[in-house]
Amino acid sequence: MEANCSNMTPLSSDSAEKENTVCIFGTGDYGRSLGFKMLQSGFSVIYGSRNPSSASLLPKGAEVLSHSEAARKSQIIFVAVQRDHYSFVTKLSKVLEGKILVDVSNNLKINQYSESNAEYLAQLVPDAKVVKAFNTVSAWALQSGTLDASRQVFVCSNDSKAKHAVMDIVRALGLIPHDHGSLAASKEVENYPLQLFPTWRLPLYICAGLTVLIFLYCLITDIIYSAITEEKDISFRIAISIANKVFPIVSLILLALVYIPGVFAAIIQLYRGSKYKRFPDWLDQWMLCRKQLGLIALSYALLHAIYTLVIPIRYYVRYRINSNIITQILKNETRTFDNTLAWRTDAYIALGILGFFFYVLLGITSLPSVSNAVNWREFRFVQSKLGYLTLVLCTGHALIFGWDKFLSFSRYRWYLPPAYTLSLVVPCTVLVLKLILILPCLDRRITKIRQGWEKSSSAGKEFENGDVPLQTKM
Amino acid sequence: MEANCSNMTPLSSDSAEKENTVCIFGTGDYGRSLGFKMLQSGFSVIYGSRNPSSASLLPKGAEVLSHSEAARKSQIIFVAVQRDHYSFVTKLSKVLEGKILVDVSNNLKINQYSESNAEYLAQLVPDAKVVKAFNTVSAWALQSGTLDASRQVFVCSNDSKAKHAVMDIVRALGLIPHDHGSLAASKEVENYPLQLFPTWRLPLYICAGLTVLIFLYCLITDIIYSAITEEKDISFRIAISIANKVFPIVSLILLALVYIPGVFAAIIQLYRGSKYKRFPDWLDQWMLCRKQLGLIALSYALLHAIYTLVIPIRYYVRYRINSNIITQILKNETRTFDNTLAWRTDAYIALGILGFFFYVLLGITSLPSVSNAVNWREFRFVQSKLGYLTLVLCTGHALIFGWDKFLSFSRYRWYLPPAYTLSLVVPCTVLVLKLILILPCLDRRITKIRQGWEKSSSAGKEFENGDVPLQTKM
Amino acid sequence: MEANCSNMTPLSSDSAEKENTVCIFGTGDYGRSLGFKMLQSGFSVIYGSRNPSSASLLPKGAEVLSHSEAARKSQIIFVAVQRDHYSFVTKLSKVLEGKILVDVSNNLKINQYSESNAEYLAQLVPDAKVVKAFNTVSAWALQSGTLDASRQVFVCSNDSKAKHAVMDIVRALGLIPHDHGSLAASKEVENYPLQLFPTWRLPLYICAGLTVLIFLYCLITDIIYSAITEEKDISFRIAISIANKVFPIVSLILLALVYIPGVFAAIIQLYRGSKYKRFPDWLDQWMLCRKQLGLIALSYALLHAIYTLVIPIRYYVRYRINSNIITQILKNETRTFDNTLAWRTDAYIALGILGFFFYVLLGITSLPSVSNAVNWREFRFVQSKLGYLTLVLCTGHALIFGWDKFLSFSRYRWYLPPAYTLSLVVPCTVLVLKLILILPCLDRRITKIRQGWEKSSSAGKEFENGDVPLQTKM
Repeated sequence: MEANCSNMTPLSSDSAEKENTVCIFGTGDYGRSLGFKMLQSGFSVIYGSRNPSSASLLPKGAEVLSHSEAARKSQIIFVAVQRDHYSFVTKLSKVLEGKILVDVSNNLKINQYSESNAEYLAQLVPDAKVVKAFNTVSAWALQSGTLDASRQVFVCSNDSKAKHAVMDIVRALGLIPHDHGSLAASKEVENYPLQLFPTWRLPLYICAGLTVLIFLYCLITDIIYSAITEEKDISFRIAISIANKVFPIVSLILLALVYIPGVFAAIIQLYRGSKYKRFPDWLDQWMLCRKQLGLIALSYALLHAIYTLVIPIRYYVRYRINSNIITQILKNETRTFDNTLAWRTDAYIALGILGFFFYVLLGITSLPSVSNAVNWREFRFVQSKLGYLTLVLCTGHALIFGWDKFLSFSRYRWYLPPAYTLSLVVPCTVLVLKLILILPCLDRRITKIRQGWEKSSSAGKEFENGDVPLQTKM
Repeated sequence: MEANCSNMTPLSSDSAEKENTVCIFGTGDYGRSLGFKMLQSGFSVIYGSRNPSSASLLPKGAEVLSHSEAARKSQIIFVAVQRDHYSFVTKLSKVLEGKILVDVSNNLKINQYSESNAEYLAQLVPDAKVVKAFNTVSAWALQSGTLDASRQVFVCSNDSKAKHAVMDIVRALGLIPHDHGSLAASKEVENYPLQLFPTWRLPLYICAGLTVLIFLYCLITDIIYSAITEEKDISFRIAISIANKVFPIVSLILLALVYIPGVFAAIIQLYRGSKYKRFPDWLDQWMLCRKQLGLIALSYALLHAIYTLVIPIRYYVRYRINSNIITQILKNETRTFDNTLAWRTDAYIALGILGFFFYVLLGITSLPSVSNAVNWREFRFVQSKLGYLTLVLCTGHALIFGWDKFLSFSRYRWYLPPAYTLSLVVPCTVLVLKLILILPCLDRRITKIRQGWEKSSSAGKEFENGDVPLQTKM
Repeated sequence: MEANCSNMTPLSSDSAEKENTVCIFGTGDYGRSLGFKMLQSGFSVIYGSRNPSSASLLPKGAEVLSHSEAARKSQIIFVAVQRDHYSFVTKLSKVLEGKILVDVSNNLKINQYSESNAEYLAQLVPDAKVVKAFNTVSAWALQSGTLDASRQVFVCSNDSKAKHAVMDIVRALGLIPHDHGSLAASKEVENYPLQLFPTWRLPLYICAGLTVLIFLYCLITDIIYSAITEEKDISFRIAISIANKVFPIVSLILLALVYIPGVFAAIIQLYRGSKYKRFPDWLDQWMLCRKQLGLIALSYALLHAIYTLVIPIRYYVRYRINSNIITQILKNETRTFDNTLAWRTDAYIALGILGFFFYVLLGITSLPSVSNAVNWREFRFVQSKLGYLTLVLCTGHALIFGWDKFLSFSRYRWYLPPAYTLSLVVPCTVLVLKLILILPCLDRRITKIRQGWEKSSSAGKEFENGDVPLQTKM
């Protein structure tokens, strides 16, 4: 319709559909793989090369021309050359005027250059419409068609028609376009494929450190102690018995670590009497990895659950039970049923199961598709209310499991308390602090602060006319 | 490009990008938090205030002007004031003409006003382009940057360019815009953040009611009966033994409740001979909460599975087994292996495992991302075929578990049948009704009715020329 | 805005909103259901019928006119008639000029016609704007409102304004529009609702075949052997003991089958010295069903895990343990604790648990919403590194479980080796081949080939200037 009132060549997806010809600058691996896929999807492909006669290995059915000839034949040009060689396009600025240039490049390192490749290209040919796309899909994936991985292609551009034309091509190749806004986002898009779980690194290090520490502690108080004081080799306990001490202890500590930063934040805000100052960096960092910490804690809890359930099928356990019975018979003992012990063991097992159950619920609501389907109020309800419930249940599980063992010094080996007590320090601290913070007097103050009230300002101002009511926002 | 042929100020995302200045009306908490985030993301922020000189606590780098001066400096104005004070904008209608007004407000209650805040704002300044957005993101989330929760921002507007300009800002803040169509949808968008699992309420109440009932039943026939007739305290059985009766019984009843409404609907349609009449309201309600009922039933089944697997590590069970063996030895008994009993116990365990397995499959296909990836035919196959298979397996599990216990009246306590029989009434009824409904004669009729045939109309009409073939739609 | 410079009737969503009247051609079941839903959502509905006076069963509030009268009243016309009767629209081409025609039809078979219904319709009325939509939502779903299933509506069209107008209607009905690009995609959209897990078929057949084979093998060497040689009926072992042999064996074979095609592909590329030739078809097919094979293997592993955990609560196992103890006491034996056996059993259990744990991680990253949230590098890391780790752990689990049993010929029944040896052939082959392939000399060559190098071409060319660096793409 716009064609009615302007003489410019129409750039709408329709004309791109009709022409159906794309140009690819660069006959390297990515250019070849892209052309291969394009030809398969019914496009005509024309390569632009510095040296058209020497280009080899190109997919069958593609034409090769010089850069300027190739560019002239198509509205859309894919630039599949290294950033270092982008400068050649300046010579083509006349031909490229008004055309769509698709930057498909990636870098070798995150933030390698000060501006993104796509923005650099846009500076070189200001009259072309530069679109960043396809960098998230590898040459191998295009070539082999085995797109098990993410088929998402992030597309960004300052020209919305150019963007939509490229998005239509993405769809035609069987990929899923994802509008990432303007070219200012291209840096983020270029960094994306270089990441390897950046948000998981810190939590995994913390978890690995704790695991090693607790493992050594258990090794010393259990196996090495036995080997030295009783000269008994019980090293076979490493595979399951020790592992099944390490997993629950680390899991409970990690779960408590998820809830510490929230408590710290509340204390800091109470102390400062304001929410309008930034938290210290370490606290921000910590807050941002809570989800990952929680999921690692959940996976350790899962391992603990399975390790516990296999107990009765272990040779060692069966042997011990058998020899127990035999001893009992030979000594002609009669053990009476201990009602309290029955209550206690059943109670800690039941608490453990329920704690694990809510843990799994928390994990499920962390799945992207589930957390996207709930609103902020629901998410906070699950992560905060259910999260604390889980922490209470799991701490209770550990407390009842340990019972009064920490009091019997006969169990202390080399003056070291039983391992389970290690797991209780952090969670109990968190729960006590939280209990203090939800005392009505403190809770009211925190709520006021989070609604925008400041100690320095007059207390009557926080509900200044014209404010958006905030109860509904929290 | 349209700028070539009209003199209106261009509103495209490009110009918004270049200007990069936004105006925020209101210096309350939400306005401050939004401005803080905007400044962080590289925007220039100008606040519009009734009383610019007294505005305090504003983020560093933001300017404060009067409403009209501020509005003049930006194409996009965020209205972060309470609905009650919207009226001030009428005085600015001249300045706001052609500008984008973003309504970010929320209410305190669902459906608080007859029309949505955004529609009300649009009525006040008919010449502005009102966009509803940001109300799903809390001030706290904007301020602290801890956006673990949904980062989705629902955007709706009658002006598609204004909508896209706002969506670009949403993306620039690191949030995910979600196009919700025209301003008519703003009421829904405003209600969204106020909900707290509305679809889960009824199913959770049903589940809680059933749980309490069955728990009391088990308490009476088990613990209280023992306490009164045998004067034995077996209250420790509450934690695991009783719980592991309640969970499977309620789970099976809930699973059956998922399939009753479908059976009722078929019966009603058979009776009416038409599908073009509405079902009674209670049936509609019931149908809409089937997914939730099923997921609660699944979580109870999971609890039942774990509670069952911990049986051998319980003190009580180990004690009983030990004393059993000792008694056997002292009495010099030889018990022969009971082949039938071995078959029976293994069979009900195997049925239970398989039932649980398909249950979990059903649960996984309920995940939003999985159910979005299957088509209608596949979804129906899983939920209907696999669902009934699960119901059959689980009912079989309960039947073989109970076996002939319900016949031995010695097990009846105070004339009350064993608890497991309670779990069988509803599932068996559903399965019998379903068996009747899939008799060829009835099934053919239901299929015809669901393809649009009506008893009153001539039977020959249902494949009237010009109909879309429906086999493929079911 | 475009209306300023052209005299054409505006087609923007705004005008569609204001008019709010839709026309439906066809009074069959789908037309009626669609109209019903439209009326519920506040649209005015006018039916176009060949024979307006005889149309019956239409939803209350809808008007019925002749085709041309109805078409005149609305900008948007839904064509809910069978493709065989599309020809009638040619007579209306005058009235339909510039209007939006929505093709909602489905076929009975995949690829029933050479061109899609929507493209056929577009050929019949070239001056109308044809949009394909709604075919993924069934009449039953529209009518009953029970949209548990996918609420996604795929929309495609060559006219982007028409497409957006239809997408707004889709949203207004509470459904989720999904832009599928141009009308060329309509064939795919029409085939979509006819599929029933096409990618799962081959993997399920493979799994079923293997399951039957291994089951028969176990039946023969276990139950039939006992029945014939010892005349003992141990058929009760089918339900759990045999099942718990079949599941792990098939699971391990399937897991290995996931990694064979990758090994084969590497060998083929090494041999050919190029990646620019297509793999044989069977290998392509195999590669495309790896995810499904892996998920089936995971579900069998889950079943194996649960079947293993229930061992101690089985009557048979309890009976055997009891009689074991009694025999021991009566014979006055003392069995010494076997440290090696304790290590061995604990080690294979621990390996099994860890293998299962990583298996589950692999499964979780296969969920669409999770795999969409990771980039290519992360996905490859998980699926390749963690995948091989899982295979190593599970193979180790099976090896240590079997230990030297395969050497003791006394355990061979009818010269058949123990069943567990069957599970080891394929995984061990895969692991040996993979070990050879990651030898530095071979690995370097494969990497070069996958970066675009070819044996025939000069080795110096693969890093030709102007190539996109590929390390970052793999």
